[in-house]
Parts: sequence; C-alpha cells; structure tokens
Amino acid sequence: MKAKKIFKALAIGAALSLGMFATNVADAAKPIVLETQGSYAVGGKTIKHDGTFSQKNFLSPNGQYAYGDHLYVFYQIPVKAHRYPIIFQHGGAQSKRTWESTPDGRDGFQNIFLRKNYSVYLVDQPRIGEAGLATEAASDANVWAGNPLYYDKTLFILSRIGTFDGDTPHVFNNASFSKDAETFNQFERSWTTYTGELDNDLNADSLAALFDKVGPSILFSHSMGGTIGWRTVFRTDNVKAIVSFEPGGTPFVFPEGEVPEAITALCEPIGASAMAVPLEDFMKLTKIPIVLYYGDNIDVNSDHVGMNKWGTELDMAKKFVATINRHGGDATLVELPKVGLTGNTHFLMADKNNQELANLVEKWLKSKGLDK
Amino acid sequence: MKAKKIFKALAIGAALSLGMFATNVADAAKPIVLETQGSYAVGGKTIKHDGTFSQKNFLSPNGQYAYGDHLYVFYQIPVKAHRYPIIFQHGGAQSKRTWESTPDGRDGFQNIFLRKNYSVYLVDQPRIGEAGLATEAASDANVWAGNPLYYDKTLFILSRIGTFDGDTPHVFNNASFSKDAETFNQFERSWTTYTGELDNDLNADSLAALFDKVGPSILFSHSMGGTIGWRTVFRTDNVKAIVSFEPGGTPFVFPEGEVPEAITALCEPIGASAMAVPLEDFMKLTKIPIVLYYGDNIDVNSDHVGMNKWGTELDMAKKFVATINRHGGDATLVELPKVGLTGNTHFLMADKNNQELANLVEKWLKSKGLDK
Repeated sequence: MKAKKIFKALAIGAALSLGMFATNVADAAKPIVLETQGSYAVGGKTIKHDGTFSQKNFLSPNGQYAYGDHLYVFYQIPVKAHRYPIIFQHGGAQSKRTWESTPDGRDGFQNIFLRKNYSVYLVDQPRIGEAGLATEAASDANVWAGNPLYYDKTLFILSRIGTFDGDTPHVFNNASFSKDAETFNQFERSWTTYTGELDNDLNADSLAALFDKVGPSILFSHSMGGTIGWRTVFRTDNVKAIVSFEPGGTPFVFPEGEVPEAITALCEPIGASAMAVPLEDFMKLTKIPIVLYYGDNIDVNSDHVGMNKWGTELDMAKKFVATINRHGGDATLVELPKVGLTGNTHFLMADKNNQELANLVEKWLKSKGLDK
Repeated sequence: MKAKKIFKALAIGAALSLGMFATNVADAAKPIVLETQGSYAVGGKTIKHDGTFSQKNFLSPNGQYAYGDHLYVFYQIPVKAHRYPIIFQHGGAQSKRTWESTPDGRDGFQNIFLRKNYSVYLVDQPRIGEAGLATEAASDANVWAGNPLYYDKTLFILSRIGTFDGDTPHVFNNASFSKDAETFNQFERSWTTYTGELDNDLNADSLAALFDKVGPSILFSHSMGGTIGWRTVFRTDNVKAIVSFEPGGTPFVFPEGEVPEAITALCEPIGASAMAVPLEDFMKLTKIPIVLYYGDNIDVNSDHVGMNKWGTELDMAKKFVATINRHGGDATLVELPKVGLTGNTHFLMADKNNQELANLVEKWLKSKGLDK
C-alpha cells in the first residue's frame, strides 16, 4: 500500500507539473478527468390500463399508464475526448457491469477506454438492471418465475473459465483469470436477472435510438449483445464501427437465401444459430468496419460444454464474417491465441490481460481512422 | 451552445492556468477529476439446489448454488477527497439512479458531491437494479408477478410533484420541478422493479457490510432507504453520520416501550409506521449526528394523496427525532420551506434547487466536522 501511495503521489505530481494531459504518465496511474457524466432512459413504450384513475383508489392500475422497455445509459465524457464515443452493449443476463471493474477488482474496459480519452456510454438493455420496468409479462422460463434462476456451475463453465470437482471450481491452467475465492464470488454475483421477455428487436430499437441521440459512435458488444448490434445497424446510420467480443448466443444474421444451417453443440440447446434478414439490411453491415474477437480454449470437438459451445459460435462467426466480406464489406475475425494473446475466457474484456486486449482494439480503431 | 462552448473553454483554460483544483472555478464548470472508480458486490447469500450436477445436464439446477441477495455498489474517488466518503442508499422501487442525473438532465447529488470532492458510493440494494439476483422467491404483490407494476399517476402524485387532469400531469405551481414532457417521461422511467421480496434487514446487513469494507463514512438515505439506514447503525460502527431525505414508507424505529401508534393517512395503506427495537440498538442512533430534510407541499390534512401521506411521515419523523434527542442524541429535522428553500418534491435531491440543498447539507456536514 505504501508503494502504491508513493506512486500515486508521483503520478499526481507529474500530472500537475507536466500538465494534466501529459502522455508520459502511465495510463493506469493517470487521473480520469471528466468534463461531465450522467444517465438517462432512451426509447421504450407505454401501455394504458383500462378504467378511470381516482385518487381515492390511487394504488389501482385503473386508468394509469405503465412505462417500460426503455434502456438505461450511464455516460462519461472525458475532457479532450476523441471524436467518436464508444457505446457498450452487454450480453445475456448481464448489465453494464460487464464493462466495469473486473471480478478481481482491476479496471474494466470502462476505465481503460476512459483513460484512453474515449467517451463511454454504458447500457443496461431494456428489461434488465436499472432499466427493469417492462410493459409486458414474460412468458418463458428464462425470466424470473419465483425461483432462483442462475447457477454457479452453468455460468462458470459456459464462460470457459474452467471446470468443477464437486463444488470446487478449477480455473483452467492457462486461463487469464484469477484463481482466488473472492474473484469467483464476484464473478457469480456479476450477473443479474430479466424482468420481462428477452426481445432483441426491442433492444435494437432502443440502442438505435441511443445512437441517434448521441450521434456517430462506435459500438462495443459482448456475447448475446452481438445480435442486438447487427440489428442496430439496420435502424440507424450512426454506428461507425462494431467491435464485438465473442458474439453468439443469439442468431448471427445472413441475407435471405444465404442462411447456413444451425451448428449443433454436443449439449443442446446451446449450438450456434443463424437468421435471415433482407439483403438490403445486411448490406449495411458491409459499409462499416467490423472486428470480432474470440478467446482461448475454444474447441467444437471438446466435451467441455463451454469449449464446445463457443466452438459452434466461432464456426458460425467465421461464416458471418466471410458473408460480409463476400458482399464487399470489411469484417475481421481475430482468434486471440493466434496473435499471441492466450488464456482468454468468454469475458475477455475482464481477463487479466484485458489491458493488452484493449491496446489491440485501440490499434484496430486507429487503423480505421476512428481515433480522431 | 456557442456560449456554452466558450464558457467551457474558459473554465478549462482557467483550470489549467490556475491549477486544476483552484477554488475560484465555479463548481458546475469544474472537471470531475477521479483517482479511480469501479464497482463490486457486497454481502449476499447462496442456496444449494438438491441433486448432483453433471455437464450433460448443465442447464439443470441440480447440485448447483444460486448466488444472490448482495448489494451492488459503484464508487468514484476524486483526487484530494475528503476523509469520509458518502454512501448513498436509495428508496423504494428506485436504484442508484436516484442520485444520478435529474429527470431534467442536470447534475444530481452524485456529481454535485463529487465536485465538492467527496468520494461517492452509489448502492443498488439487494434484489433490485444491477443487484437483481435473489435467492428466494417473492411472495407479495409488490414484486413482479407477470404484470406491469408501476403506474404513472401513483408515482407522480405520491412524489408530490403535482396532480392530473385526465392523463395530463400538472406540476404544482410552486414546485421546483421542470414542467416539460421529456422531464415527465424521464421521471416515469427512473423507477425500476424488485426481483425478490423486499427485506430491509437483509438490506441493512449488506449495507453494514459495505460500511465495514469502506471504513468510516457518511450515509445519505432517501425515502424507504431511511429505515435501512437506521438499522445499519445497529450493525456497524462505521456510520459517522446520517443525512436522510424524506425518510418514510417503512417503519421508523423506537425503543421498546416508546413506540407511538401508526399515523393513518386518508388513503390507506400509506400512513406512517413505527417499530420497536431494543433500547441498546436505539441508543446507537444517539451517538452520531443525524439530519432529516423534508420538502414543500406536505400537509397531513390535505386530500391530495401525496401531501397527506408525507404529512403522516413528517409527523412520525418529528416523534423519531424527539425520541433520539430525549435519549441524549443529536438529531435535527429541517422543514425546507421554513429555512427559505421552497417547492421541493419528494425527490428533493433532484429538484431544480438541488444545488442549494446540497450547499445546505455541506454546511451541516461542516458544522459536524465531517468535511475534513
């Protein structure tokens, strides 16, 4: 702690004497200097309950509107921000926490990209987290129905962090993930629950409305957030680029007539799926740069459920990327072990090497002229 | 916009030439300079489902633990922070959004107190918002049960913002609340829903665990968060002071044998309630400074449901404060119109005059030596 304090004092001293924005101060030690920050709701619907409202019966729904189905966004604008903000779309049963502190308590992508002077917009998608109001009841078993829904082993294994021996988790030897008990505890508590039916077109409607409010921006998506992102491009011209971390879990999109068959996993129902969209929509994905990152321990032939599952998604992702490029687009798929970044789990933005991954992403943004 | 840009440029210029922390730069224009920020879960429980886990049946709960009932906290530490952080506990059907941007898009107490160089810790209490995982099913009608739960008129009227003419909201003439349609929309979308039973002792357990993790801190509570706060003091010695904004909606606490009768409102079930706690616990509330703020348009004799409801709570709050002081404590109740701050709704920390209210609070903190 003492060394940390001294380092902090040195960093602040350096910042003051060299100017707050001196680039020779290490990223991680630099203060985060915000012009402002805030939050609001975007999009959504209302429904009206039948009847007439009266103050005497003011707890009755009669004659009242219910508001819901909006997204919630928390934004932070650094001083001297790059031109294009980053909008962060989380995956299934997650929230904006995906991008915040890692389970082992280090900077997540929120802080890392803020320290790189990007404005950040962190979304809770409709019907989850702080956007919990829904205007429709849920009909499927994925939604809270009176029973604790999420399971430690399912989440840990599907996220390709490791295996279990009885109740004891074992992090893969090569995984870029801390092995202590508190990290495991924080990982298990980083999830949340739906308060209504998952509807990815509704989610894309709200996300597109956010892009239209904010203006031209870069989309970062994760996991089930992938399909929300592809569909958002059909609804707004303000998505300048997509950086997608292990998209999957909901359909990849393909032009009508070019849809591949679903790829079945050893353990159903977790294979990779595909859906048809009009060619006119799909072509919008060929007008912007897109990059997909996949981590380590992915093997479609493995009998480890997570390794197998993400093997099917990776195979489908390759077809998706090939289809975009066949239509003249600019999509890249990066298998991180092949470029020297090893041990990444499904939550690669929170892994121990997330700073190196962020540097890779930053280079890609720069190569596309998106770091202005 | 042009004037704003020029002002911003001047402010940044001033900050750079005078030193980033010069006190002659207006608060609102000062950048927010953070040493760091992050989030994590605190407290909570696990339950184990019966049976044996197997990868072949990995979506089954068999043999798995469910994690839940923790709180979520997002913290921000400014450089040169005051000694005592502020921990913010929201009210019923709310989340940390209570303290973020106001419905009309201005700085909420999160930003205002950050700009005053306090560290801030914003909580989503267990079973709400980004702490949505619960280990127990809900049993009462306050919890999501397949129907849209919240109603525009109930929320607006109970919050003492105004009245309705049919579906048209009318903000009270004297209210410190913006009258435009988008502010109304944002207000209605600022709520969220429970994902499990409301349990204020569970909530206090987690909040006390947060105080024990962070160390000596100041508690800000709102509305139904009031009762969580009183109970937190029974569980930890790290609550240095409580600043409570319109506590109510759940019981005030009194020593056994000194519990007043519930105060009935014109429209049940919304009167003010009281509960007994051991004298030994209650005495802990006499060891720290406590201040309660109540806003405008509060009248126990009104036939406006919100004015009437908060009239009952204000009367109970006066008994609570008198009881603390009778036992040698230091509790103050401030009726804001009596000190010149008028028009405040139930969300006084988000009202148009919230900067003036924050200044009042800051003076109080200073008077208690809590601004070191």
